[in-house]
Amino acid sequence: MFTAKWLTPSALLTDLYELTMSQVYVERGMLAPATFSLFVRKLPRQRSFLLFAGLWPLLEALRELRFSEDDLAYLESLKLFKPTFLDYLKDFRFSGEVWALPEGTVFFENEPVVEITAPLPEAQIVETLVINLVNIETAIATKAALCVLAAQGRPCVDFGARRTQGLEASLHAARASYIAGFTATSNVLAGKLFGLPVTGTMAHSYVESFDREEEAFRVFAENFPENTVFLIDTYDTLEGARRAARVALKLKEKGLSVRGVRLDSGDVIELSRKVRRVLDEAGLSEVKIFVSGGLDEKRIAEIVSSGAPVDAFGVGTKMGVSADAPYLDLAYKLVEYDGRPRMKLSEGKITYPGRKQVFRRYADSGLMEEDLLALREEDLPGKPLLKCFMRERNLLETPPSLSTIRRRAAEEIARLPKEVRKGKRVPSPRVSEALARLYQETAEGLRKEI
Amino acid sequence: MFTAKWLTPSALLTDLYELTMSQVYVERGMLAPATFSLFVRKLPRQRSFLLFAGLWPLLEALRELRFSEDDLAYLESLKLFKPTFLDYLKDFRFSGEVWALPEGTVFFENEPVVEITAPLPEAQIVETLVINLVNIETAIATKAALCVLAAQGRPCVDFGARRTQGLEASLHAARASYIAGFTATSNVLAGKLFGLPVTGTMAHSYVESFDREEEAFRVFAENFPENTVFLIDTYDTLEGARRAARVALKLKEKGLSVRGVRLDSGDVIELSRKVRRVLDEAGLSEVKIFVSGGLDEKRIAEIVSSGAPVDAFGVGTKMGVSADAPYLDLAYKLVEYDGRPRMKLSEGKITYPGRKQVFRRYADSGLMEEDLLALREEDLPGKPLLKCFMRERNLLETPPSLSTIRRRAAEEIARLPKEVRKGKRVPSPRVSEALARLYQETAEGLRKEI
Repeated sequence: MFTAKWLTPSALLTDLYELTMSQVYVERGMLAPATFSLFVRKLPRQRSFLLFAGLWPLLEALRELRFSEDDLAYLESLKLFKPTFLDYLKDFRFSGEVWALPEGTVFFENEPVVEITAPLPEAQIVETLVINLVNIETAIATKAALCVLAAQGRPCVDFGARRTQGLEASLHAARASYIAGFTATSNVLAGKLFGLPVTGTMAHSYVESFDREEEAFRVFAENFPENTVFLIDTYDTLEGARRAARVALKLKEKGLSVRGVRLDSGDVIELSRKVRRVLDEAGLSEVKIFVSGGLDEKRIAEIVSSGAPVDAFGVGTKMGVSADAPYLDLAYKLVEYDGRPRMKLSEGKITYPGRKQVFRRYADSGLMEEDLLALREEDLPGKPLLKCFMRERNLLETPPSLSTIRRRAAEEIARLPKEVRKGKRVPSPRVSEALARLYQETAEGLRKEI
Repeated sequence: MFTAKWLTPSALLTDLYELTMSQVYVERGMLAPATFSLFVRKLPRQRSFLLFAGLWPLLEALRELRFSEDDLAYLESLKLFKPTFLDYLKDFRFSGEVWALPEGTVFFENEPVVEITAPLPEAQIVETLVINLVNIETAIATKAALCVLAAQGRPCVDFGARRTQGLEASLHAARASYIAGFTATSNVLAGKLFGLPVTGTMAHSYVESFDREEEAFRVFAENFPENTVFLIDTYDTLEGARRAARVALKLKEKGLSVRGVRLDSGDVIELSRKVRRVLDEAGLSEVKIFVSGGLDEKRIAEIVSSGAPVDAFGVGTKMGVSADAPYLDLAYKLVEYDGRPRMKLSEGKITYPGRKQVFRRYADSGLMEEDLLALREEDLPGKPLLKCFMRERNLLETPPSLSTIRRRAAEEIARLPKEVRKGKRVPSPRVSEALARLYQETAEGLRKEI
């Protein structure tokens, strides 16, 4: 079973106002069910779709969430909270219902990806956690999916760990990029926790710590005869390629074959061609060329479209932090409380009230045609995307393997219309008549009553 | 004492190649001291200085680092490693020497911020950890410092937790932004762990969960008479301001005063003027105006230069992920092994060999004049910036409080020449003659020998 044990969240990792507001709720007995909807208001400029990830880490965290004795003592020390509320927190467990998209689903602006219904303070206190985990994994999964699309079938490997925003983030990045179609990660802990394939090559420091480059290659190959990728750009890339070829040939005589060489600097399009020639002329056509260093979907597309003989990509920092869109405009908004629809009227920030469902229609070709944003109780044409994953502390299904989620993501992306996949059209859901009506009625009611 | 107990890193959070390379080192007895230097190759386009942070979390992590039984069993299961090497990892403890800038020091391209000297495999295995922690805290501290400069004395508060890249990242962001001069955080766990002031207001959901906005305000103020900031833009900002004023006046009759109102949407420059008028006309000139919502240093500067009556800023996502520069071009490079200087010759990626020191010279005005990048043993004019913090598992000084680090950061930034502070000049260190010579000699030697 999937487990997010690497993340043992303290319920105290929340914004202070979640607790002050909740004290008011508890004091006044405002414990009726509230529904909060998590959605992206507007896609980042550089994205035409988003790939949903982060749900199972979130569900695990929701099940584990509690305030420790120590946390409660800290809260007491702030001299802000009443004893009755601290008692409430002592027994705090998240008991709510979680509706969500399955991980690996493609989605667009204003479409709820998670909807939580729980007694008001519970639904409120988990806000920070809910937004945070979905934000990072979805942002990174989407960026990684763009790299995979650009690579056109060539493997992409996660090299992001060293420059993600914190160590936990490196685990999310490994998980999310695998969901998006990456084939492996260099992150050993991620490999252990998520059962991902782990891989790696060698560093410049390794080559430099020997007196001769060729010796560095030879010794590595002896230690890892089936897992050797020579890094050949430490001193002179073509000289490095020739040295790598000599070592690879000696191994070949023993029936062993090195996997490849890696280029990490310089004009890799030009260099890969020259290196390919060196390898081919040595009779090493089976030795692959890996490229790394500052890659993102744009650079990968350039390399691929140049026809350069590059077989695989090591993608690090720019994927690992989703560099051109490092956050999503993700909001967690109250849409219903105590049976009544709720919304705000703030300028430029529309929130649709009520519990929702998204119905997705497909064309005969199998490609996505249109999404309809509707109320949850509506029964409309198309495939309903959200389903209930958790209720009263029980998971309603066995967590899927990451391979299953990864397969779904690949299918979802394959069903995007070509112009969406290429970033040329940004879909937006149509709003159902019932939802549009509820929005109008709620807005008018609010303008009169509040 | 400072402790990073919230971060209990597994030594397994490393790149696979650190372990494969280390097996070779251990097998061949390559255990001589290696020095790795951590530096930023080139500042992000939008930065003219960087503010160093992340050292003490790193030192704590280095002291705690080990491979668990479980980790070793996982590594064995990969069928990559030899039993002798797994035995080595079983007893793995970081025993090296750590030189570094004190946290809160300003630095520039090519200047080492951390230099680690340890037996080669130890110095290699910690690479991922070292880069990662310094990268996130320094990126965020720098971004936060720019916000503080833009706010010109008005308090900035960290509201970043919900959209940082992971939950751990939110703790780094709270810590780093406090170092940079933020006055408080909304992140309760960060408050507990680092002893930071915690603060908060109320959310739109809070206001919406009441039938009337004014009642929501009144009840909150009753619960937190000395900590109330009304969020007034849920429905109609000016109407909200009038309701807030009525509640504040009633409290005032009881001798209590609310702290302020918050604007989170709309044209806050225009709105803040109108809201100020509402409050002043009600005799509430002591009630402050807080602004939040998509703020960064540019937006803060616009608001401040408009003369809008804004008293404080809640700065969230864009600071919390350092949105315009979410990573640094931070490299951890071998500069010496077994007494010999080391470097690579890769195109466009110069690394200076040898252990280093940075000497900083100041003008008579007290402002920074020039940095000199030199070898560690050199004795040159100026203040040496790097010092030894850790040796043989011992910390050489008591960890400073965050207030001390914060004070140093403020002093450092105050000593930046104005054009650097304003982003109009990007300093670069001069290279000492001895270092330039070593670079030439090493490069020539390598071209001949390798």
